[in-house]
This record gives sequence, structure tokens and C-alpha cells, in this order.
Amino acid sequence: MLSVHIEQGRVSLRQAPRPSPKPGFALIRLILAGICNTDIELLRGYYGFRGRPGHEFVGEVVGPEGSALLGQRVVGEINLACGACDWCARGLGRHCGRRTVLGIVRHPGAFAEYLTLPEANLRAVPRAVPDEHAVFTEPIAAACEILDQVRIPKGAPVAVLGDGKLGLLVAQVLACYGAEVHLYGRHAEKLRIAAAAGCQTHRSGRLPRARFDYTVEATGSAGGLAAAVALTRPRGTVVMKSTVHGAVALDAAPVVVNEITLVGSRCGRFEPALRLLKTGRLHLNEMISAEYPLAAAPVAFARAQEKGVIKVLLRAAG
Amino acid sequence: MLSVHIEQGRVSLRQAPRPSPKPGFALIRLILAGICNTDIELLRGYYGFRGRPGHEFVGEVVGPEGSALLGQRVVGEINLACGACDWCARGLGRHCGRRTVLGIVRHPGAFAEYLTLPEANLRAVPRAVPDEHAVFTEPIAAACEILDQVRIPKGAPVAVLGDGKLGLLVAQVLACYGAEVHLYGRHAEKLRIAAAAGCQTHRSGRLPRARFDYTVEATGSAGGLAAAVALTRPRGTVVMKSTVHGAVALDAAPVVVNEITLVGSRCGRFEPALRLLKTGRLHLNEMISAEYPLAAAPVAFARAQEKGVIKVLLRAAG
Repeated sequence: MLSVHIEQGRVSLRQAPRPSPKPGFALIRLILAGICNTDIELLRGYYGFRGRPGHEFVGEVVGPEGSALLGQRVVGEINLACGACDWCARGLGRHCGRRTVLGIVRHPGAFAEYLTLPEANLRAVPRAVPDEHAVFTEPIAAACEILDQVRIPKGAPVAVLGDGKLGLLVAQVLACYGAEVHLYGRHAEKLRIAAAAGCQTHRSGRLPRARFDYTVEATGSAGGLAAAVALTRPRGTVVMKSTVHGAVALDAAPVVVNEITLVGSRCGRFEPALRLLKTGRLHLNEMISAEYPLAAAPVAFARAQEKGVIKVLLRAAG
Repeated sequence: MLSVHIEQGRVSLRQAPRPSPKPGFALIRLILAGICNTDIELLRGYYGFRGRPGHEFVGEVVGPEGSALLGQRVVGEINLACGACDWCARGLGRHCGRRTVLGIVRHPGAFAEYLTLPEANLRAVPRAVPDEHAVFTEPIAAACEILDQVRIPKGAPVAVLGDGKLGLLVAQVLACYGAEVHLYGRHAEKLRIAAAAGCQTHRSGRLPRARFDYTVEATGSAGGLAAAVALTRPRGTVVMKSTVHGAVALDAAPVVVNEITLVGSRCGRFEPALRLLKTGRLHLNEMISAEYPLAAAPVAFARAQEKGVIKVLLRAAG
């Protein structure tokens, strides 16, 4: 089968054997996959990664024989948990210390014609949700995770810093849940998507100071955290969504003096994301900058790194 | 009256006029004051401070005539709030944007024979609490603040990082409230105080990884935050107590990936601190390294900066 390989900053195509699912695993034929910022970071050497990336996907279960999901269109939670530890017992396999992670940590990713995942990780996609939306389930779940961690009152003003892929999804998800979202970003065309989805939008530049009780940092840049802290009122909450690598300069004094709470936030449950997708309220078509066949993955990765580009999709031949 | 002045790294003594309290304010005769790390930082130029420091004190109300507190022994909340804004309405004058702060921000401090504070800031000291303990009320309140911000279950293991003045108080306060406190520090004689107060103590060096659901960072050093994050389990909470100035290097990735919550924590309410002091359960005598007369303030400040020294007190002639 066709498979994408990254190593030492290069994206290449390979022929790989079709995987044989282990007991409890399903074999999934890829339909559509999305390139995430994490994939770009893996390409740049984060985690010393080498192998097949890809963790945003929608596919069809094609095996094994007798699988309850056979023939179904599915998305999949990316953390493969041990199922036996305290974290797993608490339903928090996303933090299982022995987990592997699809396309990130020791489990081959979704950028291939076939992939495997535990059946327990799979969720059937409602018929009303097209492939082009279902492929966003994983990052939407990451946006929904904020609401599992922080109680944001209905109608509360929330600042979202950064109008990239994740910032746009976070802004839309929070708006759907009734927050008064203020998205601060640099790109007029990206801000327009959020505005159409009901967010108030602002060209970042000079940010207001101590204005919001809730701020989500999704800039993906090293300076984002300090900016988010400055934007937040005393006793307020900053949700940290950017996995910036290496040290970030943080002036701890305003965090302590203003008693601000910083909440690290990563992956989320798929259920709320699928429920939200089913409503059709998210503006996702506008977020798709380009779609390439899987065989054009090197070009797609290059495109995904261009300025102003939002989501780039990879479609399997099918 | 005798007054302590700091400016450009120097501590000096001055004669100053006895202050006349404004309406709503009390005149307080100093009995005993404590030198805090913040005073040392003010001396080193933090906040561009110049003037009279001192915010840990116990004194006697000597004016104005007819004050309900006249003749009483008091301690005082250090934030002078406007009383009119939203913060003040919520009982959070400690975050009032127009506040001045005793001995720190535009209100002359307690290192003088007399000081003034709003009567609303003063709390009578229970008879059972000696001056040498009452003078710790403000930093004990700062330690108690953690329990106002974070719900720590009874018996939960909590790591406290740093065996300085604040770390020792935090460790003891949390132990009194039923936590299983593990204090990590560098000084055998300081750890002994915490051990006598019922804490488990560890010489810091190589710290365990991802061991605690709750960690309090009280090292006062730039490296403390990263160490506290490493010590904390996924989904755990790090309370930030050190007001380190300038940028602290923080690797945001483990905070995000492990969904750790960082809670900035500063001043607290005096009531729980006074209740705790009244129980007599805190080991405070052992924390007093030296006591000097107010007239020896320059020597006292030098002593307070020596290695291994814990609390240095200043006593007014009385």
C-alpha cells in the first residue's frame, strides 16, 4: 500500500505492507486525512520523530471479519492506552503513561491507504457529517476539551489568541457553546471565517490589557503565552493550547500577583465533537485550503507550511 | 519618629514626622515587624521601589480618639483597596486595580515606630497568640490562600518545593489542614522544622518525576517552576508562590501535553491565618533566626540576606 514517510525534514512516499490488525484492533481504509501543525513539527524533528505521521482522519472499517464496525465510516481517538492503569480506569487513557499515539508516538499514522487502531478508539461518523467535516473531529475534540476542563459561563466574553487552524476551531466551538468569543489574529481572510461563525474579530497588534476572565492561547508561537497573560484579568484563566517546543519566556510575577490560572489543554473526547459536527454549525469548508491525493503528500506538506494556508487534506485513492 | 528608608540598594534610618491618619484610618504603634523576601527584592530595585518598606507587622492601635480598635493589638491586610470597584464589591480588594500596598506600592510601610492603615484592614490578634507569632500572620495568610484557590482533598499527598520562609509556612499550613506534605529543600536545619511539624521531608537534588497531583512552587528561584511541573502528575496542579522577577524559562509542552494547571497565588485572607495561629500548632519560634531593634535595621537586612537565615524580626522600642 502507499504510505507517507518523514525523516530528517523530508517527506517521501513508500510502498509498505498492508498492516494486519492485532486482536481488538480494526483495519481501516483511509478516506481523507488532515495535515496538522503537529505533523509539521514532527517533520521539523520534534520528538526525534521518524516514520509515518497522520492522526486526523476519516476512514472505513474493512477488517477483521466479524468486526462490529465492519463497513462503517469512522474517526478514531489517537491515544492508544494500556487499558489497565489508573488513568485508563478513570477514562483518561489520553494520559496513560504507557500509551502510544497514532502517527506521533510509536504507532504508524493515518497517512497511508490503510491503518489500524483499537476498535475501542473508533467512533462511527453520523451520516449527516460529510468526510470533509469528519476529518476535523480530532482537532474539534481538542477544542471541546477546554469545556471539559474550565467552566465558562454562558455569555462570558472569551479571548482566543491566534487565528490558525486550532484558534479558528476553538473560537467556533466556544461560540457554539454560547461564549462571547473575541478572536485576535493577523489574517483578515481567517478572521472572516470566525466572524461568519458569530465571533467578534480583532486584528492583533496592540492587545488590550487585563480585559478577559478567559483567554485561550492558540498562537503556536513562543510569545503567545505572555500576551495571553497580559490580556487576562486578575483571577482569570488562560488555557494553553500551543505545544511550542523549547523554553517559552514567562514572567511569573504577573501570573502570581494577579493570581492567574494557566490550564494546559491537549486532546479531548470525540463524543462532543461529533455531536457538534452533526449540528452543521461549524464553518469548516472555508477552512480547507487545499486537497491533494495521498500520492502528492510531499507537495501537500509544502503547501501546508505556506503563509495564510489553513487546512490541507490528503485523499486516498479509494 | 524612627523610620527605615531604602533606596538604590541601601538601607538607612531616618527621622520622619509621625503620620496623621486620614478619615477611616487608624494610627498604629509598631510592636514587631518581619523582613520578607519581598523586602529584599525591593531593596534590590524591584518595582523601582524607594521609600519605607515593611508589610509584616503586629502593633497597637493608638489613634484616632474614639476608634473602636483603640488599645487593641492588631495585624493588618496589606492591600489598601478603593472600596468602590467590582473587585472590592466581590471582597477581592487584594486585586483592586487602584489599590496601594503597605510598604510596597505607594503606602509607607511598617518599618517605623508608627504606621497607618484603614481600620477595615485591621484584625484584632487573639490574646493567646504572642507577638512573635502574630507577626507571621501575613505570610501565613498567603499560605492559606492556596486552600481558597485549590481544593486539596484531606490526606492527599502534596509536594512543597523550597524550604525558605514561605515554603516552610506553606508546608506547615497544608499539613495542619490534613494534607500529606512532602517538603523538598536544601537545608537540613530548615527541613527539621517541617519534620517536627509533621511533614515528610526530602533533600532536593534529584526530584521524582510525575509523582504528585498537587505541587506548590515556593523556591523563589527561576528554575523552580520547571522542577515543579516535572514533579507533577498529568492533570495535576502546580501552585505558583514565587514572585521571581524577569522571565522564567518554561517549557510549555509538558504543561500542555500533561494538561497541568498552574495557579498563581499571592496574598490571602487574614481570618484563616489567625484561626490557625490560635491553635498554636505552627512551629514558628524555630523559624525566627534573629531579632533586632528597629534602630539596627541596616544590620537586620544584611542578616536576612545571609545563607541559612529564616525570619529576621525588627522590634520597636515600645
